[in-house]
Amino acid sequence: MNLPLGYRYAAVYAGIRAVERDDLALIVSGLPASAAGVFTQNRVQAAPVRLSRRHLAASRGQVGAVVINAGNANCATRTGAAVALATCKAAARLLHLRVAEVLPASTGVIGVELDAMKIIDALPRAVGGLAEDRFGEVARAIMTTDTRPKEAAGEVRLRRGTVRIAGMTKGAGMIQPQMATTLGFVMTDAVIAPAQLRGMLKRGVELSYNRMSVDGDTSTNDTLLLLANGASGVRPDAGEMARVEAEITRVLQELAKAIARDGEGAGKLITITVSGAPSHAAATRIARSIANSPLVKTAVHGSDPNWGRIICAAGNAGVKFDPGRTDIRLQGVAVCRSGLAAPFSEAELKAKLDGPECDIRLRIRGAGKGEATFWTCDFTEGYIEINASYRT
Amino acid sequence: MNLPLGYRYAAVYAGIRAVERDDLALIVSGLPASAAGVFTQNRVQAAPVRLSRRHLAASRGQVGAVVINAGNANCATRTGAAVALATCKAAARLLHLRVAEVLPASTGVIGVELDAMKIIDALPRAVGGLAEDRFGEVARAIMTTDTRPKEAAGEVRLRRGTVRIAGMTKGAGMIQPQMATTLGFVMTDAVIAPAQLRGMLKRGVELSYNRMSVDGDTSTNDTLLLLANGASGVRPDAGEMARVEAEITRVLQELAKAIARDGEGAGKLITITVSGAPSHAAATRIARSIANSPLVKTAVHGSDPNWGRIICAAGNAGVKFDPGRTDIRLQGVAVCRSGLAAPFSEAELKAKLDGPECDIRLRIRGAGKGEATFWTCDFTEGYIEINASYRT
Repeated sequence: MNLPLGYRYAAVYAGIRAVERDDLALIVSGLPASAAGVFTQNRVQAAPVRLSRRHLAASRGQVGAVVINAGNANCATRTGAAVALATCKAAARLLHLRVAEVLPASTGVIGVELDAMKIIDALPRAVGGLAEDRFGEVARAIMTTDTRPKEAAGEVRLRRGTVRIAGMTKGAGMIQPQMATTLGFVMTDAVIAPAQLRGMLKRGVELSYNRMSVDGDTSTNDTLLLLANGASGVRPDAGEMARVEAEITRVLQELAKAIARDGEGAGKLITITVSGAPSHAAATRIARSIANSPLVKTAVHGSDPNWGRIICAAGNAGVKFDPGRTDIRLQGVAVCRSGLAAPFSEAELKAKLDGPECDIRLRIRGAGKGEATFWTCDFTEGYIEINASYRT
Repeated sequence: MNLPLGYRYAAVYAGIRAVERDDLALIVSGLPASAAGVFTQNRVQAAPVRLSRRHLAASRGQVGAVVINAGNANCATRTGAAVALATCKAAARLLHLRVAEVLPASTGVIGVELDAMKIIDALPRAVGGLAEDRFGEVARAIMTTDTRPKEAAGEVRLRRGTVRIAGMTKGAGMIQPQMATTLGFVMTDAVIAPAQLRGMLKRGVELSYNRMSVDGDTSTNDTLLLLANGASGVRPDAGEMARVEAEITRVLQELAKAIARDGEGAGKLITITVSGAPSHAAATRIARSIANSPLVKTAVHGSDPNWGRIICAAGNAGVKFDPGRTDIRLQGVAVCRSGLAAPFSEAELKAKLDGPECDIRLRIRGAGKGEATFWTCDFTEGYIEINASYRT
C-alpha cells in the first residue's frame, strides 16, 4: 500500500478493553492538515463527537492529530466531556499542538465510565511508537466486532506529481445509512483547502457510507474524518480536483463495501442497484428499503431466490412506482418481469447464490432516470449470537 | 370462549399447502354483517387486498362471508385478480350471497400462481362443514409460520343485553407497524352501522396493530376485518358505544400482542412504554424505533441489560428530546437516570430478563405528555433459520 506522505501512526494497549489488544491509536500529520468531518445524526451524541465538532470549528479545519480509542464509546457517562477533553489535552501536550488541533473518536460500549488516566498514561508510549508504516496497526486497533481490518488506498497522477489517498474504517454492527457511519479515517497528501475538503467529503459520503447498511441502527459515535496535509506538495488545479475527488470517493466506497461485507455475522456482500426511479433520491429510498429488509437479508443468506420479498420491500419504500412495470434480476438472472415471475431454473440460481457476493438489480420502466447503488450484507445466526452477548 | 352469535366457521385442506394441513377457511354470518377493513399500505398489493377493498365499497360495508386461504399470497401473479374473483364467485354461489358480499384474504408465498380450481373444488366441502363452534379450526388454518393459533374474546354487558366479540389473527413474520398488519378477523354480534364500525376499527388499529412489530417488514397482503352482524339484537346506545369500542380495542390489542409474542423465532414478548414525549405521535415514533432496533432485540434475547442500545435507538427516532433528561427502566429496575448509568445489580437484572416477558419504560422529563405503548419480540437464531429457508 502506497501511503500518503507525512503521516505517522501508532497503536498501543491502554487497558480499556478487557482483553489485551491494542485499544488506543494515534494518527499524526507532520504538517498542519486540512480536515473535514461528518458525524452521527443520532439525537444521542457521544462526548468525542461533540468535541470533534467543536475542535474542527475552533481550529478552522486545520488539525494535527486524531486520537482514537476502542472498547468504550465514552457516551452517556457522567465524565464523558471531561475525559474527551483530557485526552485531547494530553495528546496536544506530547505532540506540541494546540488542543483544538486534536480530534477525538471513540467506539465501544455505551454508558460505562471511561477512565481518562488509562489513556493519559498510555499516550507517551503511543507517541514514542509513531511510525509511517504502522497504518495497519491502527486499522486493527479500532476494530470491535469486526473480523478483519478494513483499508483502502488510491492515487492520482496529476501534472505536477502524484497524490496518494489511504483510508481505514471499522464497522460490523450498529450500522445504517443516512450519515457518516461508524469510524473512518481517510488521509491524503494532496494540497486541498478545508472548505473544498468539506465539499468533497460531503459528496463522497453521499455515494458511499450513506449507501450502505448492516442492520439499520445508527451509532452515537459515528465519525468519518478526511485529512489533507499537502505533504506531496501537489496542489491539484481546478480541472484535476474532480479526479482527486473521484478517487477519494472510490476509496470511501471501498471502505463502505468492506463494512457491509464484514457486517456482524455476515456471509455475503449484497449489492443492490435500482434504476428507472422517479429520481436518484427515490432510487436510494427503494434500494435502502430492500437493503434493510430482514426478510430479503435472510433469503440471501439461505440462497433462496425469493424475489417476492424484494418487490415487497421495494413497495415499502414510500415511493410511487408501478409494480407491473418492474423487473428484477438476481445474479444476472431475470426472476421477475413486469411484476410477475419470470421462468428460471431455481436449482441453477440457488447455486449462483451460494457465492460470497449477491447482486440484486431492480429496474422500473417509465418512471424516470433515478439510479442508486447500495451495499449491505446477509442476515445470519452469527449476528444474533454476537449481539445477544456483546457486553457479557 | 363465548363466541358472538350468528357466525359459522369452517376449514378444509384444499391442496394449496405442500403439507396436508387446512389451508382454506370460511367465516360466514347468518345475517348481513356491517364490515370494516384496514389493509396494507405497501405499494405492492395482493389481488385479494384490492378485491376486498372493491367489495367493501360495492356492498356499502354489508357482507356475508370471508374466504381465506393460506399457503399462497395470490400476489404478483399473472392470474391473481381472476383467481380472487373466481374464489368469491364460487363462495357467493354456494352461500346465496352477492359476489360483493364475499371478502377474500390470502397469505403465503408471493409470486407463485394460485390454482383457483383447488379452491373452487374444496369450497363445497367447506360450506358443508360450516359450524358455530369451528372458530378454532379457522384460527389454525390461517397460520403460516405461527407456532400457535391466536385468538381473543370479550363481551360487554349493556342495558339491553350482552354483546360478544371474538377475533383471530395470524402473524409471525413480515410484520411491521404503520398499518393493518397481517391477517386478522374480528367478529361481534352487536348492532353497529358500517360507518361507525369503520371509525372504531381505525381508532382501535391505531392502538393495537399499529403499535406492534416483529421485523419491520410489511406484507403485501395485510388485511384486518371487523364484522358486526347484530345477531345479539343489542344496539348499543350513544353512551354504551364507547364501552363496546373499548372492548373491541382490547381484543385487537390481545391479538396484536399475541402476534408479537409469537414472532418468528421469538422467545420473549417485549412491551415498550414511552412517556413524557412532546406528543403521542412522538412517543410512538420513539417506541417504534426501540422496537425495530435489531440491537435492542438481540440484547433482550441474551438477557443483556444493555440500556445504551435503548437510548441509542430512541435517539434515532427523529424526535427532539434531551437525552440528559431521560430515564430508563428495565423490568421495573432503574438502569438509566438523566441519561447516565444508574447503579443496579447486573446479575439480578439478568435473572429477571430470563423470563418470557420484557418490560422497557423510557420516560422523558419536561418535554410533554405524549405516551405510547408498543409491542415487539426478541430477535433470535430461530428467525434466521425460519427465513433463510421459507420457500425451500
